[in-house]
Amino acid sequence: GTRDFGREQMAIRERAFSIITSVFKMHGGVALDTPVFELRETLMGKYGEDSKLVYDLADQGGELCSLRYDLTVPFARYVAMNNISAIKRYQIAKVYRRDNPSKGRYREFYQCDFDIAGVYEPMEPDFEVVKVLTELLDKLDIGVYEIKLNHRKLLDGMLEICGVPAEKFRTVCSSIDKLDKLTFEEVKKELVEEKGVSNETAENIGSLVKTKGPPLEVLLELRKEGSKFMENEGSVVALNELEILFKALEKANALDRISFDLSLARGLDYYTGVIYEAVFKGVTQVGSIAAGGRYDKLVGMFSNKQVPAVGVSLGIERVFAIMEQQEKEKNQVIRATETEVLVSILGKDLILAAELVNELWSAGIKAEFKLTTRVQNHIKYATQTGIPWMVLVGESELRDGKVKLKDIRANQEEEVPRKDFVEVLKQRLSNP
Amino acid sequence: GTRDFGREQMAIRERAFSIITSVFKMHGGVALDTPVFELRETLMGKYGEDSKLVYDLADQGGELCSLRYDLTVPFARYVAMNNISAIKRYQIAKVYRRDNPSKGRYREFYQCDFDIAGVYEPMEPDFEVVKVLTELLDKLDIGVYEIKLNHRKLLDGMLEICGVPAEKFRTVCSSIDKLDKLTFEEVKKELVEEKGVSNETAENIGSLVKTKGPPLEVLLELRKEGSKFMENEGSVVALNELEILFKALEKANALDRISFDLSLARGLDYYTGVIYEAVFKGVTQVGSIAAGGRYDKLVGMFSNKQVPAVGVSLGIERVFAIMEQQEKEKNQVIRATETEVLVSILGKDLILAAELVNELWSAGIKAEFKLTTRVQNHIKYATQTGIPWMVLVGESELRDGKVKLKDIRANQEEEVPRKDFVEVLKQRLSNP
Repeated sequence: GTRDFGREQMAIRERAFSIITSVFKMHGGVALDTPVFELRETLMGKYGEDSKLVYDLADQGGELCSLRYDLTVPFARYVAMNNISAIKRYQIAKVYRRDNPSKGRYREFYQCDFDIAGVYEPMEPDFEVVKVLTELLDKLDIGVYEIKLNHRKLLDGMLEICGVPAEKFRTVCSSIDKLDKLTFEEVKKELVEEKGVSNETAENIGSLVKTKGPPLEVLLELRKEGSKFMENEGSVVALNELEILFKALEKANALDRISFDLSLARGLDYYTGVIYEAVFKGVTQVGSIAAGGRYDKLVGMFSNKQVPAVGVSLGIERVFAIMEQQEKEKNQVIRATETEVLVSILGKDLILAAELVNELWSAGIKAEFKLTTRVQNHIKYATQTGIPWMVLVGESELRDGKVKLKDIRANQEEEVPRKDFVEVLKQRLSNP
Repeated sequence: GTRDFGREQMAIRERAFSIITSVFKMHGGVALDTPVFELRETLMGKYGEDSKLVYDLADQGGELCSLRYDLTVPFARYVAMNNISAIKRYQIAKVYRRDNPSKGRYREFYQCDFDIAGVYEPMEPDFEVVKVLTELLDKLDIGVYEIKLNHRKLLDGMLEICGVPAEKFRTVCSSIDKLDKLTFEEVKKELVEEKGVSNETAENIGSLVKTKGPPLEVLLELRKEGSKFMENEGSVVALNELEILFKALEKANALDRISFDLSLARGLDYYTGVIYEAVFKGVTQVGSIAAGGRYDKLVGMFSNKQVPAVGVSLGIERVFAIMEQQEKEKNQVIRATETEVLVSILGKDLILAAELVNELWSAGIKAEFKLTTRVQNHIKYATQTGIPWMVLVGESELRDGKVKLKDIRANQEEEVPRKDFVEVLKQRLSNP
């Protein structure tokens, strides 16, 4: 359930993180780092049934702690504990779940979170978080995606219209949430047989959750004359908020990736407003690559002050897998290092090697060195790891006060005076 | 014993990590990431008395795991498990110790490790690791430092010469290791009363461990005619290795920071060759900021194949504290974000804000936006967080098809046509 990330994997991971971080910084996000474990009581009662997946530390004396399950609850705890009234933060860190490794799930994996907490104008932060999500997926360039978007208040309104009693809203939602994996008939069976919903109510739900499509069109549809949603108070509030959100996203060229989808329910209890989930288009059973929503009551669970918040969490493991596949298809060497020059000393003179390689390091050139009696091994190493240049020094070069430079890709060699080799390499490297 | 890193702290931390990573990459290091917890048996029997500080995960079914205590043992486990014969890797990650928070020690803290495993010519990787340590401390620029350096084989030779029986080498070493905190009289008392060393032997040790100074001078001293070290096999091997190391470091302009110090013993059992520890010069009781050495037997504890290795570990927490202090003394605003422009919309028009700020994001300009009726709050926010430019849009600007640009530091405003504002800002930002 855990794994090491070695060499080439790390290079890809670093590239992904660099893209993600640059998007977060583009939006003025501040970085936050929280401890890998939290007081156990902080995590209790936040994840519903999934609480059983929380890793506990052994009781070795002192406070009881558990490994973080996500980055959202630690963020809310941080905001509450530091009495913060407004913050836009990002965090890229590992989370821990005692999930079933046989299902191909890791027990340690990265999440990339961006959240805005504080009181703002309606949809001001919601707009930015959804926009950030589109930028992340656009810049990672890992496939055609769609962001399903809904609103908890609209979902509750829909259930009210269909005749579901309020106390069953959350459990019915968790059935609806399965519509991306089950057929409606299967979900209906669960609703009727397990959750005690009447056949007629289930049919009503079934006809409404089919509603999905381009946001502004669906909005028109739900607001047209005779729509039951216009008679439902919560739904009207939700639709008004969504109108602002959609128009802002439209102005920011991000609306075309959004599908307003009444079947999106999201499992977690703490969402209170807009919810969304990004999926690859045309690919079933892959699940979501990112998800989030508004949670206005979570910070208040750790203090006396409510601080409303909205955020998104990108599950980066799937992104790594796709990027690795893309690199393989491109048939390129994934470089694990950035080494520019390999200094190859034909002999075992460490002191000579130290002198030459140090001149390169001092000039800011990334360099490795090797001592050898077999230069072919070094050329092979440079070729395999993608090092573009070699400095070869043997007896004859030493005697003549020269060094040999080898351009690995062009397979060309030239001799230059010992005193000039750093300057020459600098020029070669800056004009490849 | 744990803590959050917020805003400005994160900015400093990122700068430190960026310097450290660039040094590691300059030397062709590959990044490695290992899980935060390891099988408990992997960590058992590696840390001597400190094993009691290892954090265990609760037994919730499945394998027994513990949080990593350092990055060296997981690295050795990785090399063994993947049957690697040569690797130069770096890792920057948190480690966990159930230490006493009242002593000002954190229970979660970062280590930055650089290690070279594999069979090389004598001192080839040892030279590079020590050179990396000097580059790290030079580039972090956090104060005048000294690297104490010794060799386990020389230390053992010294104890042999003094008449210490072989089975007491390690326990006597751990007493010698306290010489940076205790007087010799205190250490002598421990040696004689607790460790059963004779008074004469203790005095002999006391006179030899005083030996320290510029490496090549001390080397001459220890090798001069009549020196007992020259009659001791292990010591002769150690001195020959050290000669190569010192000469290579001299050629790489790194020898002047090294003090050859016979009192350096290092606590950990697994060192087998060169050992070193970096300390701030003239500052007592601060302890080491970095340490490491050669450990040729550790990888073999996880497989049938011995892979010799040498490494260094930088304790970055103290580095952060010093860098934070330096920034304070410079009296500069530590920026938590990189935001270049704040778009301030006088009114509550999110849709207008979305349009304007999106033009900046699309042009690669880092931008935040705010809706307001009180522009003074926005100017204050920009000033406090170090945002250099503002875009101000009110009713009159909108009517005239213009926007107002404000240079925060110069406190100057200018009006530009709405359609040109991104171009103008681009120019202003590239010529500050």
